Amino acid sequence: MYSEKVMDHFTNPRNVGEIEDASGVGTVGNAKCGDIMRIYLDIDEEGIIKDVKFKTFGCGAAVATSSMATELVKGKNINEALKITNKAVMDALDGLPPVKVHCSLLAEEAIHAALWDYAEKN
Amino acid sequence: MYSEKVMDHFTNPRNVGEIEDASGVGTVGNAKCGDIMRIYLDIDEEGIIKDVKFKTFGCGAAVATSSMATELVKGKNINEALKITNKAVMDALDGLPPVKVHCSLLAEEAIHAALWDYAEKN
Ligand code: FES
Repeated sequence: MYSEKVMDHFTNPRNVGEIEDASGVGTVGNAKCGDIMRIYLDIDEEGIIKDVKFKTFGCGAAVATSSMATELVKGKNINEALKITNKAVMDALDGLPPVKVHCSLLAEEAIHAALWDYAEKN
Repeated sequence: MYSEKVMDHFTNPRNVGEIEDASGVGTVGNAKCGDIMRIYLDIDEEGIIKDVKFKTFGCGAAVATSSMATELVKGKNINEALKITNKAVMDALDGLPPVKVHCSLLAEEAIHAALWDYAEKN
């Protein structure tokens, strides 16, 4: 049902945690399942995402997509990060079952919310 | 949104793992969200549940209810374990939001399936 990459990022998620005094924080909820996700970004003066952490109450698919999404945005600039879609994250994970696609939206939306939070502050 | 006990059992879940040569194994799926849960029981000759472990791909509510459910069945006999409902598990956790009640069913169903597996083998 789940690819090896999904199981890897689920059982060994990257970048779980919080960033104190983050440049941007995004919190989003999933109406379909009631889960929540929070992403913290640390962005330098040149607009490069230096660090990123996430926390979620969501399922394994939400954990795996967030873990992969944080890996994909790290080191990118803001415009590049905005272009990372949930489709790209799912592709990087070798796919997700259809019933789990909505879970992958949490990561994309949380990154966008965190970038928006950063933009509002600067 | 979530009680302190739910957050405790989510962030520090009890009895996660597998039991080799378990007396009974139960695997169930949640049609609503596509998540899966597996529970392993180690039952002695007197029918007492000596050990119990679980694995899930489910959300934080599924993790918290399974963690609490495994604590509740440990040391019980089979009849006592069969009487532990998802309602009892939710009460022990000081409740769950309505959108998450279906997640708590996974633990109850997986315990029943594991007890059924044990009964069939003996
Ligand atoms: S949403 Fe699937 S177990 Fe909770």
